Amino acid sequence: MLNQSGSLDRVFQALADPTRRDIVERLVRGPASVSELARPLAMSLPAVMQHIQVLETCGLVRSEKTGRVRTCHIEPGVLRMTEEWIAAQRTAWERRLDRLGDYLAEHGDTPEQGSTR
Amino acid sequence: MLNQSGSLDRVFQALADPTRRDIVERLVRGPASVSELARPLAMSLPAVMQHIQVLETCGLVRSEKTGRVRTCHIEPGVLRMTEEWIAAQRTAWERRLDRLGDYLAEHGDTPEQGSTR
Repeated sequence: MLNQSGSLDRVFQALADPTRRDIVERLVRGPASVSELARPLAMSLPAVMQHIQVLETCGLVRSEKTGRVRTCHIEPGVLRMTEEWIAAQRTAWERRLDRLGDYLAEHGDTPEQGSTR
Repeated sequence: MLNQSGSLDRVFQALADPTRRDIVERLVRGPASVSELARPLAMSLPAVMQHIQVLETCGLVRSEKTGRVRTCHIEPGVLRMTEEWIAAQRTAWERRLDRLGDYLAEHGDTPEQGSTR
């Protein structure tokens, strides 16, 4: 499918900017035109379009033009891939804590001692 | 607490690099010394230390020196904050899909129209 590592580079890079996160936060609530996306942002339309371009390049957003209006949509699969990477790290960390707990329970003397963790 | 937006900038920026993600993937499995972290990486020790520095600055990793050995640990709270932002986006997107489903059910032409929530 995707080169996931290269994709994650670009997705995390895209999300490292507060304006681009604002755009994502807007688009998860529904599609929006470029001018709707620009309205609450304190910057020029070309600057907004550059941010949208970064979001499109990493696959988080796609857009289509109908007449003179370009409408942007979120691409949930890329968001999900990013969430999965982070969740995998959290899960690995929790598993380590569990193993540590098991080890302490096994090597503790009595259950009462083990409960002091 | 933290300035979450500024933190997210730095955390996403830190995660946009495959070496730094490798280091995170190693540390969620348990603490490691700088030289243990460097061993599988095809780069100089100073380069690895720079990556660790970026991870420490954004709060994903903390380290402590005992004698001549610096040991690195993951900081799960920052990982969790990042996961929460992404999960919030996914949730907002899913809620929108639900509302869209409700709307279609309500405005569809089935006789049970009123009974759909």
